[in-house]
Amino acid sequence: MEKRITELINENKIIEIRNELLEMNTVDIAEILEKVEKHQLVKIFRILPKDIAAGVFSYIPVELQQHIIESITAKETKTIIEELFFDDAIDIIEEMPANLVKKILMSTDYNMRKLINQFLNYPEDSAGSIMTIEYVDLKKEMTVNQAIQHIKLTGIDKETINTCYVIDKNRKLEGVISIRKLILSNGTDLLSDIMNDDVIYIRTLDDQENAAMLFKKYDLLTMPVVDNERRLVGIITVDDIVDIIDRENTEDLQKMAAMQPSDEEYLKTSAFALAKNRIMWLLILMISATFTGNIIRKYENILHSVVILAAFIPMLMDTGGNAGSQSSVLIIRGLALGEIELRDSFKVFWKELRVSLIVGAALAGINYLRLLYFEKVNTPIAFTVSITLFCTVVLAKVVGGLLPIAAKSVKLDPAIMASPLITTIVDAFALFIYFSLATWLLGV
Amino acid sequence: MEKRITELINENKIIEIRNELLEMNTVDIAEILEKVEKHQLVKIFRILPKDIAAGVFSYIPVELQQHIIESITAKETKTIIEELFFDDAIDIIEEMPANLVKKILMSTDYNMRKLINQFLNYPEDSAGSIMTIEYVDLKKEMTVNQAIQHIKLTGIDKETINTCYVIDKNRKLEGVISIRKLILSNGTDLLSDIMNDDVIYIRTLDDQENAAMLFKKYDLLTMPVVDNERRLVGIITVDDIVDIIDRENTEDLQKMAAMQPSDEEYLKTSAFALAKNRIMWLLILMISATFTGNIIRKYENILHSVVILAAFIPMLMDTGGNAGSQSSVLIIRGLALGEIELRDSFKVFWKELRVSLIVGAALAGINYLRLLYFEKVNTPIAFTVSITLFCTVVLAKVVGGLLPIAAKSVKLDPAIMASPLITTIVDAFALFIYFSLATWLLGV
Repeated sequence: MEKRITELINENKIIEIRNELLEMNTVDIAEILEKVEKHQLVKIFRILPKDIAAGVFSYIPVELQQHIIESITAKETKTIIEELFFDDAIDIIEEMPANLVKKILMSTDYNMRKLINQFLNYPEDSAGSIMTIEYVDLKKEMTVNQAIQHIKLTGIDKETINTCYVIDKNRKLEGVISIRKLILSNGTDLLSDIMNDDVIYIRTLDDQENAAMLFKKYDLLTMPVVDNERRLVGIITVDDIVDIIDRENTEDLQKMAAMQPSDEEYLKTSAFALAKNRIMWLLILMISATFTGNIIRKYENILHSVVILAAFIPMLMDTGGNAGSQSSVLIIRGLALGEIELRDSFKVFWKELRVSLIVGAALAGINYLRLLYFEKVNTPIAFTVSITLFCTVVLAKVVGGLLPIAAKSVKLDPAIMASPLITTIVDAFALFIYFSLATWLLGV
Repeated sequence: MEKRITELINENKIIEIRNELLEMNTVDIAEILEKVEKHQLVKIFRILPKDIAAGVFSYIPVELQQHIIESITAKETKTIIEELFFDDAIDIIEEMPANLVKKILMSTDYNMRKLINQFLNYPEDSAGSIMTIEYVDLKKEMTVNQAIQHIKLTGIDKETINTCYVIDKNRKLEGVISIRKLILSNGTDLLSDIMNDDVIYIRTLDDQENAAMLFKKYDLLTMPVVDNERRLVGIITVDDIVDIIDRENTEDLQKMAAMQPSDEEYLKTSAFALAKNRIMWLLILMISATFTGNIIRKYENILHSVVILAAFIPMLMDTGGNAGSQSSVLIIRGLALGEIELRDSFKVFWKELRVSLIVGAALAGINYLRLLYFEKVNTPIAFTVSITLFCTVVLAKVVGGLLPIAAKSVKLDPAIMASPLITTIVDAFALFIYFSLATWLLGV
């Protein structure tokens, strides 16, 4: 399919291209446009019917959107923006540079411009910034037949009519009713009798992550957004929530790997920007590793007499880091999904303690035998290494389990308490035990 | 609210409890039942109307579901299972121990039993295992009015009627039409004229992850599932996809932190099971760290003459590990979201190379000055440490970027190529450079 269209483009067969594209899904047309050369892009875009063009526009990358907006007339811009679902239009405008935002705002009419400006003012990541104003609002005095008639008259522009919201004369949210319920009810029933007045809603300034939590908890498809007076101002749809869940997960992962979070796609981010996101945390962690180095320097004499002790430092550090990161990842994830809460900290401590005793004993036991029989070191050294290993695993797991909860309790993001930071803490501790034990057991 | 209900339960005021609960959302009722004592649980459950009871049942934890199924009669069981949405019923039965599955199957009637058995046979994580059979199927010869009439007659039991599927007489999938389109069209239009015949679908045996990818790509609310002859057998709804996205993310995180993935909630998993999931990888990584230890043993003489070299081992290892884990996390995530593909491996190599040169140079430069002016070590040692740091960062990032892609190209899960494995590889390399450089530069 794709190949055939490339051929048609090279042969400049406009009508055939249009016919081929009209058979396809907008998402797939967008994928083809991404691969077309830039000077062809606008030409092909212009041959699409306006509603399809708007759909395709919302799916192509922001660079291409900019290229198109730069190349088309103000009138064409107006058509595209008006055909877009409102929340998509806002997303697109938010990504544009200032001169193009100006062009877009100048192209649209007064009311649209006012709405767009209002939406652009909601803080990033707030529920208000992701909502759409295209919803069906009904009055509770309506009958089912009147409601369906109202939907028929106004529904064409609405992003979703599957769920309709019932408001009073001051636009205060009163209830919710699904299109399904409307269709399956008698035409003469009053909405106030059949609507559900237990509506799950969110406020404009609430965090979009809270919205995602509510969608998951109540299995919603749409959720109303209200202002401080509980007046309906917009709705959030589940397709945006799916994107938010992915984006929040990516951000958590980046923080867990000691990076500044960024929602740019990897391949589209410059090497310099990537380096900038990574360097600060590496530097902080590098400098805190000095502390660990100082412990070694303090015990230089022991190391000088028993050089072989150095050979087990990597194993102790790595195992400690891995053991801690296992625990911290589980706890960070549990907190993110709402499965673990602050009040569970003692349960987590108790569980990690038991897990770490089992895991630590198993690893230390196997390690002891391995050192004696494979590495052929003497008993006191094997003993020193294995006891250190045991203590390190226990500490790493308990610290790894509790630090994310501690972070959350002081309103920090638990994700920063992931393996890199825990590794640094556990390293220092492990080496301290190691050399203290060595001093005592080996009598140096 | 919760407190009030607890009081009512203690006072045994059944009618009041029922009235209070009927005001609430099923998800919230389920939360209250979780906190109730077990001997009260079944009693309260029984006072709920059967449709609400079924909804609540699908939201309580599996232990409580088991307790209820054990306590109620076969007839009550039948009512609950029949009132549940079909895919929820399958999910619940899949979690039950064999004796309760038997009780449930015996309680339901022949047709239901056959269907349940059929669904239980789809492989875990397949599209078939998460679909529901409750969808609206229309014929393309129907008019809009006939279709709406058909939905009114059959729609009560359907999980979602927002999207209806059009099939031919052999049940082959022909098209899709939204309830919105039906309502907004003329009553006399033929479905074949207004339906969309470009349907995104999935096969029963395809992986549920692919289903999630398609939902995200095309912003779907439901997706039809077909058999090998393209006959419609069920639909998947977006609320299940949201759960799958979360579960897949959790699994990836667990693999990245060197654990056996498990979808049990942390607080509900025994310490022994947690230890079991963690121990195998720790053991493998511990034993591979021996390799790193052997490099140190090989260079024992250098370490003996210049003991201070040992003090910088933790910093070199930690920074290398962190630098590699930053890269691998970004690439693993990019692969999971479909933003990076196998054919991008050269682009990734080239980008990581440039990033690592910038980051490596910055860290090595700062480290060099720090060693000279704060740690007061001599120039050759500062130089050795900093050059090693530079090489380690470059190697860690390039290996961290490429190993996940390599894993994917041989059909392994990229997530296992995360920091723990990369740390182990990079450690050995870092120490090898470190001691080679030291031998050469310090002339020992």
